[in-house]
Amino acid sequence: MSEADTRKPIVVLVRPQLGENIGKAARAMLNFGLTEMRLVEPRDGWPNPSAGPAASGADTVLERARVYASTAEAVADCAHVYATTVRKRGVTKPVVTPEEASREMAGAQGRSAILFGPERSGLETEDVALARAILTVPINPEFGSLNLAQAVILCAYEWSKHEALVQPTQEELLPPAPQEDLDGLIAHLEAMLEPKGYFRPESRAEATRRTLRGVLTKPGWNHLEVRTLRGVLSSLQREPKF
Amino acid sequence: MSEADTRKPIVVLVRPQLGENIGKAARAMLNFGLTEMRLVEPRDGWPNPSAGPAASGADTVLERARVYASTAEAVADCAHVYATTVRKRGVTKPVVTPEEASREMAGAQGRSAILFGPERSGLETEDVALARAILTVPINPEFGSLNLAQAVILCAYEWSKHEALVQPTQEELLPPAPQEDLDGLIAHLEAMLEPKGYFRPESRAEATRRTLRGVLTKPGWNHLEVRTLRGVLSSLQREPKF
Repeated sequence: MSEADTRKPIVVLVRPQLGENIGKAARAMLNFGLTEMRLVEPRDGWPNPSAGPAASGADTVLERARVYASTAEAVADCAHVYATTVRKRGVTKPVVTPEEASREMAGAQGRSAILFGPERSGLETEDVALARAILTVPINPEFGSLNLAQAVILCAYEWSKHEALVQPTQEELLPPAPQEDLDGLIAHLEAMLEPKGYFRPESRAEATRRTLRGVLTKPGWNHLEVRTLRGVLSSLQREPKF
Repeated sequence: MSEADTRKPIVVLVRPQLGENIGKAARAMLNFGLTEMRLVEPRDGWPNPSAGPAASGADTVLERARVYASTAEAVADCAHVYATTVRKRGVTKPVVTPEEASREMAGAQGRSAILFGPERSGLETEDVALARAILTVPINPEFGSLNLAQAVILCAYEWSKHEALVQPTQEELLPPAPQEDLDGLIAHLEAMLEPKGYFRPESRAEATRRTLRGVLTKPGWNHLEVRTLRGVLSSLQREPKF
């Protein structure tokens, strides 16, 4: 994959329902030069015969689409994950417009991904928890009825405004670690906390995990920082040394 | 019609073919607060029973749509007319993006209108001749496949950026915790790491402390997040609970 391609955001469709909508999303993407689509648990499997006709020629996007068993796996190699949602989720993450997100992604190091939820229900809280920021299209408060392909096209359109720009690489800071590094850190800490009863009572466990993930997702630690923290955890697991 | 409404651009569909596309265009408009649609010689007459279902609730736009016998009549009361087209027509008019057109319209006096051509063929030269400028969406030169509703939604979306009403409400993020909270967290962690030999050899201790502080300072955690992490540390210090 060329360097130009790895700068483009990945469109991640989480549990999409209709093949037709996957095709329309591909068409929306390619209009503005986005080519990498990932599918998380598409309802009707993949490939889907309804997708091609709806793509109106954007078959190349569909052919290259990859399928993942979970949202976490789909964004494991991504350093900048945005969750599109119109609803307030009580999640305290930065909320950005497509314009702001595009500006951030255009200047970012590491791969970016934008998560789009199922047609009816939108993203689940656990999907949103994986993201560093929430991407919201500012919409008519009295009539919000964006469909999947429309949400995709607005994001792709905004992104395309930055395409002509040559990306300067004077940034000395390391990019945030890929999501899988962060997941490893979180899993390590959770495994240590579990036997201590940190996640009890069971009824609060899910919310507690989400809170912890939120706290650890916020920093955008690079891979060296994540490695340092893994060392801290390993050290805490050791017997005292005197 | 209120003054706010007369500042909004009118969407003029010239010889639209499918009622379904008229409905989709209405839905696209209302998402971003545009309410006035005009139809020039709709192929299948008006009203069209296919339009309503495709509008997904934007019926108010369809109900208020007015039909005209010619493009000239449809824009007779407009001071600023834009013709959307992807093709060069050999017409020497300014070419603007949706962004530029929206900026112009937002600052303009008198009514604005955007002309959209029939699904297959686009606007005729005579329609374009009525416009002051050509509005073109910058698109992937290798794959340009915007449908009518998509062209409408991109224009409506850009316009909406100038409407103060629909700006997103950023959830109030808590400020970073005071430094003493962070210092308390770092001291707590260091006290746990010390007996594990984390800071040995002694010659590296200072650099190691600095690295750790750097990693923990980067996030800008708020006081709730710091409290969560203090809880994590306390939990790790406890004996296992079974």
